[in-house]
Amino acid sequence: MARQGRRSRRGGGAAGKAAEREKIGVINQMPWRIPVNTDRPTEPLDEDGVQAIHEGAMTILEDIGIEFYHAGAKEIFKEAGCIVNGDNVRMDREFVMEMIGKAPEQFTITPRNPEREITIGGKHILFGNVSSPPNYWDLELGRKIPGTREMCANFFKLTQYFNCIHFAGGYPVEPQDVHASIRHLDALYDKLTITDKVAHTYSLGKERVEDCMEMVRIAGGLSHEDFEKKAHIYTNINSTSPLKHDEPMMDGWIRLAKRGQALVVTPFTLAGAMAPVTMAGAVAQSLAEGLCAIALAQYINPGVPCAIGTFTSNVDMKTGAPAFGTPEYMRSTQMTGQMARYYKLPMRSSGVCAANVPDGQAMWETSNSLWAAVQSGTNMVYHAAGWLEGGLIASPEKFIMDCEILQMIQRYMEPAVTATTPDDIALDAIREVGGDGHFFGVQHTQDRYTTAFYQPFVSDWTNFEGWEAKGGIWTAERAHTLYKQIINEFEAPPMEESIREELAAFVAKRKEEGGAPTDF
Amino acid sequence: MARQGRRSRRGGGAAGKAAEREKIGVINQMPWRIPVNTDRPTEPLDEDGVQAIHEGAMTILEDIGIEFYHAGAKEIFKEAGCIVNGDNVRMDREFVMEMIGKAPEQFTITPRNPEREITIGGKHILFGNVSSPPNYWDLELGRKIPGTREMCANFFKLTQYFNCIHFAGGYPVEPQDVHASIRHLDALYDKLTITDKVAHTYSLGKERVEDCMEMVRIAGGLSHEDFEKKAHIYTNINSTSPLKHDEPMMDGWIRLAKRGQALVVTPFTLAGAMAPVTMAGAVAQSLAEGLCAIALAQYINPGVPCAIGTFTSNVDMKTGAPAFGTPEYMRSTQMTGQMARYYKLPMRSSGVCAANVPDGQAMWETSNSLWAAVQSGTNMVYHAAGWLEGGLIASPEKFIMDCEILQMIQRYMEPAVTATTPDDIALDAIREVGGDGHFFGVQHTQDRYTTAFYQPFVSDWTNFEGWEAKGGIWTAERAHTLYKQIINEFEAPPMEESIREELAAFVAKRKEEGGAPTDF
Repeated sequence: MARQGRRSRRGGGAAGKAAEREKIGVINQMPWRIPVNTDRPTEPLDEDGVQAIHEGAMTILEDIGIEFYHAGAKEIFKEAGCIVNGDNVRMDREFVMEMIGKAPEQFTITPRNPEREITIGGKHILFGNVSSPPNYWDLELGRKIPGTREMCANFFKLTQYFNCIHFAGGYPVEPQDVHASIRHLDALYDKLTITDKVAHTYSLGKERVEDCMEMVRIAGGLSHEDFEKKAHIYTNINSTSPLKHDEPMMDGWIRLAKRGQALVVTPFTLAGAMAPVTMAGAVAQSLAEGLCAIALAQYINPGVPCAIGTFTSNVDMKTGAPAFGTPEYMRSTQMTGQMARYYKLPMRSSGVCAANVPDGQAMWETSNSLWAAVQSGTNMVYHAAGWLEGGLIASPEKFIMDCEILQMIQRYMEPAVTATTPDDIALDAIREVGGDGHFFGVQHTQDRYTTAFYQPFVSDWTNFEGWEAKGGIWTAERAHTLYKQIINEFEAPPMEESIREELAAFVAKRKEEGGAPTDF
Repeated sequence: MARQGRRSRRGGGAAGKAAEREKIGVINQMPWRIPVNTDRPTEPLDEDGVQAIHEGAMTILEDIGIEFYHAGAKEIFKEAGCIVNGDNVRMDREFVMEMIGKAPEQFTITPRNPEREITIGGKHILFGNVSSPPNYWDLELGRKIPGTREMCANFFKLTQYFNCIHFAGGYPVEPQDVHASIRHLDALYDKLTITDKVAHTYSLGKERVEDCMEMVRIAGGLSHEDFEKKAHIYTNINSTSPLKHDEPMMDGWIRLAKRGQALVVTPFTLAGAMAPVTMAGAVAQSLAEGLCAIALAQYINPGVPCAIGTFTSNVDMKTGAPAFGTPEYMRSTQMTGQMARYYKLPMRSSGVCAANVPDGQAMWETSNSLWAAVQSGTNMVYHAAGWLEGGLIASPEKFIMDCEILQMIQRYMEPAVTATTPDDIALDAIREVGGDGHFFGVQHTQDRYTTAFYQPFVSDWTNFEGWEAKGGIWTAERAHTLYKQIINEFEAPPMEESIREELAAFVAKRKEEGGAPTDF
């Protein structure tokens, strides 16, 4: 397409060449870009509501306290003047607000390909692949099975292939056929060689975090000094709700904070289970759990990039099963967005569903969660492609289908769609066609038709008869076919051979040393 | 559920009893209510943008003109001082703005059951069934076939059954097995006996409109005088874009205007086909086509209830096929919402998709269009349940699935979800559970769990293994099963026998007289 060609040339460099290639690839996709969300956020809380939730979060931190199962963290809090009682840490609001006031409102993370640098904060909205499902499902298999390294690598290929995926989250599916002690080495080697996008490290103990930072440094061809100059990798930690931060996650958090890498904290507060049954209560608790971790990071390294995540949803009160993409999930996300702006922190939410297969329910739940991300002013959308069964399954068909929605959201955010110049109002064309004709043939249409509208890649817009003539294929099956084609034709982004060798040597050495402990 | 029971009792009367019945029916659905959309609308246009589109619409009406293929309409416009040249009518903006200034910002339509009265305008958002597909598809059939009276009646049952459906639009599927001359009689008889919700009449020539008004009058047990005192029925007309109003639709429009019934005008402006390829141009043209019809109605009967509709979408420029639920559709709907508020007119949009079957694509397209309705401040959502293939197919599975989304939107709009009273912040519960426990058992949860969260009826929130144990049924198939159960157990709302007889007698008499001409 002309538009894509033009933008690719403007992009230049490796990403530019990659985009050129995609023109003749499996699908005609939108070019790499960082969408800017200019919609005024949906704000269900009035000023009193914001204050009530803030007051709630501060009271939790001041009076109830958070358990920190990490000696180092407790020492730092004690040094900072907080009240440490056993594992319980209480901190006053002045300290919390002073610390989070040091966090930047916006920051960048720079991967090995600097053209894939992402800016988190402000009006940017970024999408990442599904992360951490233990299991895999696809339509051909028709069963749920444990993830493997090959499946994980295939998801990395999708992550790299789709321009609407801006960062490479954790394992898109857990490579369970690789021993846990060396899993992070093989998986990150695959990620760094298959993708050139921003990578993530799990905060699961010192060895994994240090190995991941080192591999990202090697992949970027950076000195240790240059690595620490800005964020090149990020982590996401979850508090163990209610009101706890565990040892391995805190350890990673502190290590990354010291080296100036990006930090996201996302309490998993299911209302009615790990948090109050009322959404405002669940949000207040989530904020308290998140803000204390950010306060800690800012005390350790003032100005280190931090984002606050939300994963507040509800359970099915009949069964206790988690639910996603519900009305309560949407409103919690919007409320957290208001609070994140109140605290001037970038925000993370997710693309989520409870559905077990990529069917109608999966897509309305996922649509609800993605539109909630847009409405809330979310900056980082985790799990934006490929998630099923509340995060227990990764599915390639779902990945493909989600990318269609993500592209539509990107297109929705292009200012051209709502432009109102005289050319857009098009009175001359309306006059030319008058009351007796159509617009297909007029010059105004001819000049614009290749770029005027979103072009889908998995949606089928033909009528029933045309669709039937092509075999009457439902969406998930079309997505399956596309998935296979994309994997078959995938070409990895370039990497210097010396860097690849250095990475491989590092992995081999660390494997020889036994990798990381597995007693987490 | 306790909440539903309580609300039903509060509702009282026939609707209350119906809700009581539903408690023990096929599904546990939300009670009848008129959702209030308190979200601040998403407004992609700045003030200059609003003015640019207004200026465009006014220039079309002043300089280019609209073709009216209706002698009476042209006479009225001439009398009002407009410039009539053949079929072309031009009118200046002062006249248009003066006339639309007479339209109420909010109005009611009262069906035979006054408890089902609906208020259109303000922050209300109302949902109607799919209207007018010629064809039917269901999962068991697996084919697309022409609609029948039985299928149509089944959709009326769904329309009545679901409390989230507030008004009964046109034929949910065209009953093609009934001759066109008497189709309106049988279909409206079915609608008025199966449902007690607000009914619609097609504006297809004098006989149909007069018959429908008369039947609605009989069903309501009203005198002719009482019938005209307020709106008891509504119509929707489509201009023949670009820039034309045809004879039969104008005829119905004028008849209903004279009798004070509700009027909706919805130009079908597919950008790139019947309207400019640029969305702002398509919106401006759509507004011009709509506003002139509303100006006419207000000149005829000042204060008659009118709403402006939008059906602006785009085509697939490769094939010319219409597309729905696209980014361009969403933005056009939002832009039209801004303009409707500028003109102080209630607004109608739709729940739409291009998909041919109720699969993933169907649900992301429909979700996009329904969220656009919410974001735009739409008051009447046509086709909100059951629509497939760009409106050429009605599907009962899709109807069921859409109702889940509609209920979620209703729940999303309940103030309780985002309440921030001390009870909602729940500090005592958080203190009680502390860092070591869960919220399932605490009193705060126990007191609220039956009403705390949205309860789905077709979504399956069990995990993969639980879902597999129940047969591993995808959403469309679950919807099919529910559809059959609802139809099997359906009970029509009460109607006095004398009224039913009067209706039947009217239908018999009009059939004897030959019904309506079929030369449209």
